[in-house]
Amino acid sequence: MTASQTASHSLIETALKTRTAAMKLAALSTEEKNQALEAIAQALEAAYTEILQANAADCEAAKSEINTALYNRLKLDENKFRAGVAGVRDVAKLPEPVGRVQIHRQLDDGLILKRVSCPLGVLGVIFEARPDAVIQITSLAIKSGNGVILKGGKEAIRSCSAIVQAIKQGLSQTVINPDVVQLLTTREETMELLKLDQYVDLIIPRGSNSFVRFVMENTRIPVLGHADGICHLYIDKSADIAKAISITVDAKTQYPAACNAIETLLVHQEIADKFLPQVATVLQVKDVELRGDQHSCAILDIASATESDWSTEYSDLILSIKVVDSLEQAIGHINTYGSRHTDAIVTEDLEAAKIFLNQVNAAGVYHNCSTRFADGFRYGFGAEVGISTQQMPPRGPVGLEGLVTYKYQIHGDGHIAATYSGRDAKPFQHRDL
Amino acid sequence: MTASQTASHSLIETALKTRTAAMKLAALSTEEKNQALEAIAQALEAAYTEILQANAADCEAAKSEINTALYNRLKLDENKFRAGVAGVRDVAKLPEPVGRVQIHRQLDDGLILKRVSCPLGVLGVIFEARPDAVIQITSLAIKSGNGVILKGGKEAIRSCSAIVQAIKQGLSQTVINPDVVQLLTTREETMELLKLDQYVDLIIPRGSNSFVRFVMENTRIPVLGHADGICHLYIDKSADIAKAISITVDAKTQYPAACNAIETLLVHQEIADKFLPQVATVLQVKDVELRGDQHSCAILDIASATESDWSTEYSDLILSIKVVDSLEQAIGHINTYGSRHTDAIVTEDLEAAKIFLNQVNAAGVYHNCSTRFADGFRYGFGAEVGISTQQMPPRGPVGLEGLVTYKYQIHGDGHIAATYSGRDAKPFQHRDL
Repeated sequence: MTASQTASHSLIETALKTRTAAMKLAALSTEEKNQALEAIAQALEAAYTEILQANAADCEAAKSEINTALYNRLKLDENKFRAGVAGVRDVAKLPEPVGRVQIHRQLDDGLILKRVSCPLGVLGVIFEARPDAVIQITSLAIKSGNGVILKGGKEAIRSCSAIVQAIKQGLSQTVINPDVVQLLTTREETMELLKLDQYVDLIIPRGSNSFVRFVMENTRIPVLGHADGICHLYIDKSADIAKAISITVDAKTQYPAACNAIETLLVHQEIADKFLPQVATVLQVKDVELRGDQHSCAILDIASATESDWSTEYSDLILSIKVVDSLEQAIGHINTYGSRHTDAIVTEDLEAAKIFLNQVNAAGVYHNCSTRFADGFRYGFGAEVGISTQQMPPRGPVGLEGLVTYKYQIHGDGHIAATYSGRDAKPFQHRDL
Repeated sequence: MTASQTASHSLIETALKTRTAAMKLAALSTEEKNQALEAIAQALEAAYTEILQANAADCEAAKSEINTALYNRLKLDENKFRAGVAGVRDVAKLPEPVGRVQIHRQLDDGLILKRVSCPLGVLGVIFEARPDAVIQITSLAIKSGNGVILKGGKEAIRSCSAIVQAIKQGLSQTVINPDVVQLLTTREETMELLKLDQYVDLIIPRGSNSFVRFVMENTRIPVLGHADGICHLYIDKSADIAKAISITVDAKTQYPAACNAIETLLVHQEIADKFLPQVATVLQVKDVELRGDQHSCAILDIASATESDWSTEYSDLILSIKVVDSLEQAIGHINTYGSRHTDAIVTEDLEAAKIFLNQVNAAGVYHNCSTRFADGFRYGFGAEVGISTQQMPPRGPVGLEGLVTYKYQIHGDGHIAATYSGRDAKPFQHRDL
């Protein structure tokens, strides 16, 4: 019995319906998909009042049960709503991800191989409270030719339903079957969705680290995302102190809750006496709590770090500090405790930078700049579907490219393999076109 | 407790040792890696007698316990051995897979983003009896800058040990640490290897469908391979009958045990009366057993197919046949029963071919040629690491490209994210270089 056979019949029906509708969507032109995105934008605008009323009801029902941060993510106001609708139109402007010819090769006369990008099929998106995420991810799914099954947090159920209803209303005016977008509403359906490995091609979880880890550990479907973001900044002995201070402060404090903010500062022993007191002063002015290893504590009057500090993502104004003997020790520490997200070195020694960028195993390895640049928009992808810390591609910030795969297509004229086998085998040409 | 913590301490030590050695290998030049491959080829040649003696001992010990097919895969003779060594030198000639710049973009003045291909880290390769696979996969691992932990079948233990000893002897003459190659010898280690998701980046299983399925269901490490190969050939109403017969015979009989051979023939009802009797005659001359649906059985005097035939990979001279009402029904059948490996249409109607290639969900979708072309060598990749039927890339036949990933590198000069945020945010340039 495969995993998907244990999912409920009705959810499999939903997934199959989505898949069938998505198959037609996959073949549409850029113009047809962009017209659908415009129809969605207009339908959302037309449903503005209903959506904000539904959201107000969600907020009212949830306010006594959730914390302020979650409440703020749940709450839709006019600005957030308008930004969401503008985002739909921005997605329409992105380059077409489907139908790109990646390989075009003549295998023999009249036998032509092409590798062409194509949609994945059906995305499963599970998110916590943010209703505006429904708008963004649906736009990206349609642009990339995929169906999408959405599961929002229970606090956002009225908002998500109103948004999805408007989106389906918009799609009903176009050539796209509204079945390409589905909304699940119960918690049980989340677990069932994770079992649909025969019907769902990619799971995108949006939420806390523990939520993402839970999803990763409970599905055989590929997951786009990351649990931890334990990023490091290493200040080499040949660092420029001014750059080192500026980058440390930015990487820690510019947005400490971000996954690309640093959690640990590694400092070469030859520069520690000079650098640490200066950077500590600036960090402490910014209310950063410092926790040091023995050597750092001998230089600074700060609390001691424990072993668990090196593998903790604080997501807060806390920074652990360790003095290292060498570049190699810094690399070893990062490859042991890091989460393969983004790690940076500050140095004027290009050879040290080269070794660091080569040997640190992470999706992003930076020299003389802040780890906070790890972001799909900053990389120029136009959209960010997620940041992946897995080893295999797609890795790092992932744009629309992460929502497509490819097929090999061959056109022949009666060609058979026997012609190219055995004693009188005809050789292949393998000529790129 | 994570999965890898349940693996034995000694295997984790082995994996870490491999990883450390592989980190140095990752940074080597093409010349250094190619010199190492030449050293391996020479060491294997020098150990020819020992390796063939070890293999003779394996064959002697196993001959009463294994079938002829397995025995033939286990047996090394001079030809197979020389071909294996020639293969090492061929791998050296392949294009360098590491260090390719895939994206090169100026984010702002002095802030340069590069996406560069790099090795995965450590490969875990588990195979059944073939000792020559050790030679091939080790060469591919070294060319792609990866460490490799090998686990051969117990029947091949003496052969594999002798081969790995020669390879390590060869590597000891080079800059590469022989620790990059490890051989496991006990069955218990296979299960432990599958648990090492923190230390092993890709599992490559080489063996039967059930063996590959077992591996896929028992590890959280990405697996490169496929269990089933249920390929279809659809003869459209607008097919050229001569091409259709030739392609059917090739796709079924040229090498029936191959994963890219067809298992099911779908025939449009408008051409069935004319096509089926002709193709059946040719197939039956080639000893192909035919099993048909009701409609086929009304045309041909053949056995009835049951529901399970549509999802069976015969890997033998057996073919199931179904008559369909339409192109859409053919596509629906393939997307329901296929294994997303390779499916083909024979038709002179280009519009029908286009719909088929668009809507069939498989790694390979072909028009007017045999499914047997689904192969890394035939595609011109120079080597084939495996064929993947997963939806996400790498998909289809995978060459050396499947053994590398990428990193994002940024070089800056003290750049911080705060410059590009907030009210006076500086815009990014995003200029491709």
